[in-house]
Amino acid sequence: MKIPAMPDMVQSLLPAIEAELQHALALLDAPLTLRFHEMLTYHMGWSGEGAGPEAQGKRIRPLLVLLTAASCGGDWRTALPAAAAVELVHNFSLVHDDIQDQSALRRGRETVWKKWGSAHAINAGDALFILAHRSLLGLRGQVPAETAMKAGQTLNDACLALTGGQFMDLSYETRTDLSIEADYWPMIAGKTAALLAACTQIGAITGGADESRQEAYRSYGHFLGIAFQVQDDYLGIWGDSALTGKSTQSDLATGKKSFPVLYGLSKQGEFARRLTNGQVQPEEVSQLAALLAEEGAQLFTQETVDRMTDLAYQSLRAAGPQGDTGQALFWLTDYLLNRQA
Amino acid sequence: MKIPAMPDMVQSLLPAIEAELQHALALLDAPLTLRFHEMLTYHMGWSGEGAGPEAQGKRIRPLLVLLTAASCGGDWRTALPAAAAVELVHNFSLVHDDIQDQSALRRGRETVWKKWGSAHAINAGDALFILAHRSLLGLRGQVPAETAMKAGQTLNDACLALTGGQFMDLSYETRTDLSIEADYWPMIAGKTAALLAACTQIGAITGGADESRQEAYRSYGHFLGIAFQVQDDYLGIWGDSALTGKSTQSDLATGKKSFPVLYGLSKQGEFARRLTNGQVQPEEVSQLAALLAEEGAQLFTQETVDRMTDLAYQSLRAAGPQGDTGQALFWLTDYLLNRQA
Repeated sequence: MKIPAMPDMVQSLLPAIEAELQHALALLDAPLTLRFHEMLTYHMGWSGEGAGPEAQGKRIRPLLVLLTAASCGGDWRTALPAAAAVELVHNFSLVHDDIQDQSALRRGRETVWKKWGSAHAINAGDALFILAHRSLLGLRGQVPAETAMKAGQTLNDACLALTGGQFMDLSYETRTDLSIEADYWPMIAGKTAALLAACTQIGAITGGADESRQEAYRSYGHFLGIAFQVQDDYLGIWGDSALTGKSTQSDLATGKKSFPVLYGLSKQGEFARRLTNGQVQPEEVSQLAALLAEEGAQLFTQETVDRMTDLAYQSLRAAGPQGDTGQALFWLTDYLLNRQA
Repeated sequence: MKIPAMPDMVQSLLPAIEAELQHALALLDAPLTLRFHEMLTYHMGWSGEGAGPEAQGKRIRPLLVLLTAASCGGDWRTALPAAAAVELVHNFSLVHDDIQDQSALRRGRETVWKKWGSAHAINAGDALFILAHRSLLGLRGQVPAETAMKAGQTLNDACLALTGGQFMDLSYETRTDLSIEADYWPMIAGKTAALLAACTQIGAITGGADESRQEAYRSYGHFLGIAFQVQDDYLGIWGDSALTGKSTQSDLATGKKSFPVLYGLSKQGEFARRLTNGQVQPEEVSQLAALLAEEGAQLFTQETVDRMTDLAYQSLRAAGPQGDTGQALFWLTDYLLNRQA
């Protein structure tokens, strides 16, 4: 399937998102915290070596907030503080994740901890998180205080789920008794889906949708997140970059307990025997990926992506998004769930 | 000066604070996050080896919230979610601080990162911070939404100041060109005073005080924090535990850029020459502390503590706290600013 180009309308939101994010961070742009501010603008992709659109990421989460808000009849401008908030929460979690995983690179550039040390990076992540909450408080005066409080509660729920999912992920590194049902779904529900579900729910809240429509939007964000993550796990083993050249990037080499890996382990066959018998070397990766496919994991993973994708589209249709922002949500879903990279 | 025993009224608030904190953490007391919950209850001093009052700390910050709220005529029960929130923010910062400083012990027990590793400890700190915000959202329904939002904004301001102060503190480790005016005051205003100022302001907000009284309470919390920190710096060099037996704990041995040290460096005399000439050994500590005193630092530090203490009492009197909770605030101030340990 070929994805049409980004609608002009989506394109036009991106500068507003960047401006709102820069406004949120500007509080630290003061003489005594200049280098602190620099750490954050570097991470956001605005300053330092390699700054630019590539380093900024796709801003999917704030787009979801704005498109959702507008597609239920609200003004996307009203939702801007919430859009910046979810992106800042996402980036807080990336900065801390990179320390936790000891990742040296993020979007092709040195990570914050690699550049300034872990102590500063922990603090930089904390600041992004605090600025996220502050940005959300910007809804004050734009929407009724009760609406702002509900958006705050929704974001907070997602953050708590995020740390719960992160706890599970960290714990799973040393475990081999994991199942998809009992361990994988709860982990990615927290780590990936909770924040996306919060984006669409917060968009619906600020857009003035009623409770049942809020729930449909929330459900859309949830399944979008789940489908996206399982697809990401698929690509982590059978995607181009996992198989060719940089096989060290394959989830098989890094030991990640991804969806296909858990499926393979549950089969207790040849794949499971090899995986539980010492570190996988880069030169084994393509053969092991083929073995895992033979044992049924590739088909099952793809079927699961398709099933979750269907649920995402069903929820989105149930939410009944209106106008060109509604169309843009369908475009965004196509774009996220049919990527081949 | 002898401090009278803790008033019964203060004593009676402590179990309510513990209960509210335990209620806030109970959200993670679920099958998939049991060990995560355990990390947090361990840090809070409720579980694991050495659990008990000693491991819990003094809960000064929530006491300030409750006493302030009641002393301006509010019901302290209404302020409980805010009291738990400030204590959780404090503990979030302790968990992350301990990683940043690589401290192995906190209140006589192993720190969270030492016990479970840095990755889990970063996440545990994040969770405490998220639970702080969630606890504050508990004001919803108890006070008008606008009041709850203002309390949220006040806590957020303090958190941002906290990370700014932490940034400065981390940066100062490698600098020797620091001054009390330009570098020390802004750092401790963020690291120590901001949260205490938020405690008394939030107490006043939830207690229904008018703006000018809120400002007086805030000012009280601010100077209480400043005076406490400078006194702590004094004790870090001339306190019993800094001079006898465990001289490795002296700020002179750890290289901390404390108030007396910055004073000594500014004098550019014998003390400054020794301090900028390699790591201070434990056996040099008592002689170096005496030298620093001779150069005028001990007197100047004590005078500064006295001056800031006076400002704290002046602000508290200006706030006009009422009843036995008002009396208890004076007691708490005596207790904090006249300790000898």
